Amino acid sequence: MLNPHYIVGFVDGEGCFSVSISRLRFRIPEVRLIFEIELREDDEAILRQIQDTLKCGSIYFLAYERYAKWRPHVKYKVASFRDIRAKVIPFFKRYPLQAKKRSQFEFFCKVAEMIERNDHKTPEGVEAIRTLRDSYRKHRDSLDAGNPHVQWGGTGF
Amino acid sequence: MLNPHYIVGFVDGEGCFSVSISRLRFRIPEVRLIFEIELREDDEAILRQIQDTLKCGSIYFLAYERYAKWRPHVKYKVASFRDIRAKVIPFFKRYPLQAKKRSQFEFFCKVAEMIERNDHKTPEGVEAIRTLRDSYRKHRDSLDAGNPHVQWGGTGF
Repeated sequence: MLNPHYIVGFVDGEGCFSVSISRLRFRIPEVRLIFEIELREDDEAILRQIQDTLKCGSIYFLAYERYAKWRPHVKYKVASFRDIRAKVIPFFKRYPLQAKKRSQFEFFCKVAEMIERNDHKTPEGVEAIRTLRDSYRKHRDSLDAGNPHVQWGGTGF
Repeated sequence: MLNPHYIVGFVDGEGCFSVSISRLRFRIPEVRLIFEIELREDDEAILRQIQDTLKCGSIYFLAYERYAKWRPHVKYKVASFRDIRAKVIPFFKRYPLQAKKRSQFEFFCKVAEMIERNDHKTPEGVEAIRTLRDSYRKHRDSLDAGNPHVQWGGTGF
């Protein structure tokens, strides 16, 4: 079993807490929280150990067929709100992130509270979540301005 | 003070153990071991904490003047062989790396043993270190083949 502090250190470097808002034309967009870590396929073992420790989430293999030269990747992903609320968030509240990922996690928790209150089931609530996400992105982009070497947790938030 | 397991997790994602062999035309090349972590400038705090825990190394600011749009970076670097032998290596032997960086560290330790035996002071010893480094690079490149998303610890090894 991995030491929980090891997981926090690893996630501070490689993890991603994101909020996705689907674009649906005729009904309320769907808001989802996703916690994920994507690595090269040969690092699958570490993801299995993280999955064992957090006791939730699934592991996926990504072939990147459009980019023949890329090595396959492996992704650990928790997208169940129940697991995020009951397992992921309490874990990272107990063992706090120490580096830049902490602010990403704090925004993630704010959205979780809004989902908890069912805000995401009304158009106004979704709009409030979108506004929060946009303000986070603005904050993040002001830090990253044009640096091609910086990733702020993938496509989510 | 950071939990040591946190540092191991962070280094598994973001750290670099490298061997540099200088190109000198008329004398024996200089072999150096370097342990470093490079992050964005706004993550300086975490590097200071890692420095406090390992009780060695220096922190440098990197301006990337040639690339005006890049945000400045900050680098934690241990290049003193004495500190690497007495502090860095024992730390990561006591708290082992769990992911891909482990094999990089194992090669790093092999070179440290060769330096310990003064191998690096003879042309044959330097050649043996170079051969070891090349075999590591071959191993690494066979895993990475052309994947632009993979970094194996910068310019060193």
